[in-house]
Amino acid sequence: MRFEHESLPQRVCFGAGEAAALVRAEVERLGAARLMVIAAPAEAGLAEKTTVGLPVAVRFDEVVMHVPVEVAERARAAAARHEADLIVSVGGGSTTGLAKAVALTSGLPIVAVPTTYAGSEATSVWGLTERARKTTGVDARVLPRSVVYDATLTLSLPVPMSVASGLNALAHCVDTMWAPRADPINSAFAVEGIRALTSGLPTVAAEPGGLAGREVLLYGAYLSARAFSSAGSGLHHKICHVLGGACDLPHAQTHAVVLPYVLAFNAAAAPEAERRMAVAFGTASAVEGLRQLRSAVDAPRALRDYGFGEADIEAVIPAILKAVPVGNPRPVTAGELRQLLRAAWRGDDPQVIMAEEGGA
Amino acid sequence: MRFEHESLPQRVCFGAGEAAALVRAEVERLGAARLMVIAAPAEAGLAEKTTVGLPVAVRFDEVVMHVPVEVAERARAAAARHEADLIVSVGGGSTTGLAKAVALTSGLPIVAVPTTYAGSEATSVWGLTERARKTTGVDARVLPRSVVYDATLTLSLPVPMSVASGLNALAHCVDTMWAPRADPINSAFAVEGIRALTSGLPTVAAEPGGLAGREVLLYGAYLSARAFSSAGSGLHHKICHVLGGACDLPHAQTHAVVLPYVLAFNAAAAPEAERRMAVAFGTASAVEGLRQLRSAVDAPRALRDYGFGEADIEAVIPAILKAVPVGNPRPVTAGELRQLLRAAWRGDDPQVIMAEEGGA
Repeated sequence: MRFEHESLPQRVCFGAGEAAALVRAEVERLGAARLMVIAAPAEAGLAEKTTVGLPVAVRFDEVVMHVPVEVAERARAAAARHEADLIVSVGGGSTTGLAKAVALTSGLPIVAVPTTYAGSEATSVWGLTERARKTTGVDARVLPRSVVYDATLTLSLPVPMSVASGLNALAHCVDTMWAPRADPINSAFAVEGIRALTSGLPTVAAEPGGLAGREVLLYGAYLSARAFSSAGSGLHHKICHVLGGACDLPHAQTHAVVLPYVLAFNAAAAPEAERRMAVAFGTASAVEGLRQLRSAVDAPRALRDYGFGEADIEAVIPAILKAVPVGNPRPVTAGELRQLLRAAWRGDDPQVIMAEEGGA
Repeated sequence: MRFEHESLPQRVCFGAGEAAALVRAEVERLGAARLMVIAAPAEAGLAEKTTVGLPVAVRFDEVVMHVPVEVAERARAAAARHEADLIVSVGGGSTTGLAKAVALTSGLPIVAVPTTYAGSEATSVWGLTERARKTTGVDARVLPRSVVYDATLTLSLPVPMSVASGLNALAHCVDTMWAPRADPINSAFAVEGIRALTSGLPTVAAEPGGLAGREVLLYGAYLSARAFSSAGSGLHHKICHVLGGACDLPHAQTHAVVLPYVLAFNAAAAPEAERRMAVAFGTASAVEGLRQLRSAVDAPRALRDYGFGEADIEAVIPAILKAVPVGNPRPVTAGELRQLLRAAWRGDDPQVIMAEEGGA
């Protein structure tokens, strides 16, 4: 047991249908008098309802994916011009990301109100894009002071998108278990996240209009972000990062497809992690738990369904091999990686790439 | 799912045999140049080793249980006179408590190095005693910025004390599950704490000189403090608080004796908590898990062994009834409480006070 773990200061409030009351309480707690409300046009109505009666100094709705620097500059200028003393963000990852960009230079506190399962609100990671190049960093100032989770705000997210996003969160949890900075504390968050997502995902798929599943999915997404931002990227995220960059694959779906293969690949070499995940899935093995969950929610199945060609496999292998985390429980060879990617490309049963009994 | 949870900022470092290196890194990280080292005379040697080569401005060794105000004042004056810019505390709960008393008025950051399983280092709770009256409070300033856990520093703690202290930590975890501010996050910490303590306690009892069990016990104690300080006092702690105050019983032992009875009392009325604790204990039921654990470590068994008389039972019932938390999963009547206390006084099998199937 040798690790260092940093706990970050943040208040999270869960209350379905209570976003307005909870945001008001947080704004009062932080003593703010001039709010900057950031929300995309699609969320303008939600944002209005969520901040009704509050002292809004400026509303900013220019939300763009990956936070272009020029948009961030305009938002920062608006915050300064209107003398904002707190940011309320209402939206998905891009909206939270823009709020973080403003906080990064201004130090303004953020009250984040997520409407998706992206998880950005629970991390101190920021990202900015300049001339198609994304820069990311970690800064304590960008971590929202308070997060208000209201499941009613996620009801309009379509089921396939909710499933892909939930499985992406699940991938963060699973990958945490063998990530470079994995420790008992972030592993405990990851295991609790697996438990929550395994319960929430099928509920949302079966009953998209119900709140119970949405609420548990939000909770699971929060945990996955906390676990992952503490533990760092494991093998799964390194593979998906290369795939996403080289082949422009859709983010959440790529994660959903690749996860069972990485789990099958690592499981036997990480028996303690495997056992804990199996308990969280409620099944005899983690691989079996993920199989059952994926089948219950009709998960994305094969990379070839998302624009990844068979010929792309050889092209990405060198980059992935270079990115393999040093501490991955099972060494990764080009041959094994080829087998893994072929299986993920075809959508084969992940069992084919499991290590032999006692192998690894 | 309706809750508000506050995560507190703290760094924890675990490394057996590495206290000096880890403290040095934390002191450098915090940019301190004039340390106040607080340690009782018994820990002077450990404290010296742990701070070797660091810029110590003053050492303070007047450590007294329950932190008398006049001692706190002398420590504060010493900190001011020597212009300390950081406190390193090396010791148990009383030592950490004195460091917190200094931080409360000075705002000095603390690097805490615990030598017992008390857990005070993981909370923002402070306590001061004036003319035999203890005042406690919660203040963000007293939460140590960093905690350095080095299991070698706990090796000299005798097994019976380690067991009682570990069971006291376990009581914090169990009681968290139905405490007034219980939420999914502090429950996850509590469950992880039960898992750790269930593994660490028998190891320490069987092999007092080994580091493996000591380390896991420290980790479990840390989790229990985090869980409990977030969730607040449940029925178990209310009962023990009254017993301790009215009858001057030993703290850790009282908790160790009473826990199985409160667990048996509440279990059937809190099926979700019961199920999760059973998984953490690794047994079919939580009551059975605690029974096995207690038997493995030869736990304190009956209140009558610690100065509690049969006649005391009637005397404490009214005070306990007044203190029962509103949200306790099973209502508490005077009759049931009498039964519980009689069983705990005699050391009976806790099963006798379990609710009937479908009861509560």
